[in-house]
Amino acid sequence: MAELPKGWEARGKPLALFRRFEFERYGTTRDFLDALAALSDETGIHPQNINFGSTYVNITLEGAAGSEPGEQELMFAQRINDLRKPAGN
Amino acid sequence: MAELPKGWEARGKPLALFRRFEFERYGTTRDFLDALAALSDETGIHPQNINFGSTYVNITLEGAAGSEPGEQELMFAQRINDLRKPAGN
Repeated sequence: MAELPKGWEARGKPLALFRRFEFERYGTTRDFLDALAALSDETGIHPQNINFGSTYVNITLEGAAGSEPGEQELMFAQRINDLRKPAGN
Repeated sequence: MAELPKGWEARGKPLALFRRFEFERYGTTRDFLDALAALSDETGIHPQNINFGSTYVNITLEGAAGSEPGEQELMFAQRINDLRKPAGN
């Protein structure tokens, strides 16, 4: 697998990409979840699992059809990272 | 604890309410998650954990400040059940 986007690790069998995001409050967590849902709508890629509480979101990305994560998932992981970077504000 | 709303079980230590909801497709799952977020906004009650994938949502409700779930959580669990019942369609 190519180099992982910042903060992501590969774990499990079949191998999956995993990252935990932490937030200061529920409103920020919620904004991130909404942006993530919009990103899934745009790309047609849905994380295998999303686990969240008021101030954290854990995301697991598997490859298509149980295969290892590939270029598509690595790019999706990078775009999830980018959701945390506000553009122009 | 009073009788549990349909489909919910009490588990863990401290005791928490848990229920798994399954859906036929992502769109329905997403509608349920959006309605759940709106219910949290309305009530000010946030599940301790929500774990979801394309076609399922697992919800864990703890009592306030780590205590056992009480009347408030039981009522919230019932209202979550009611989110699955479309009104007038």
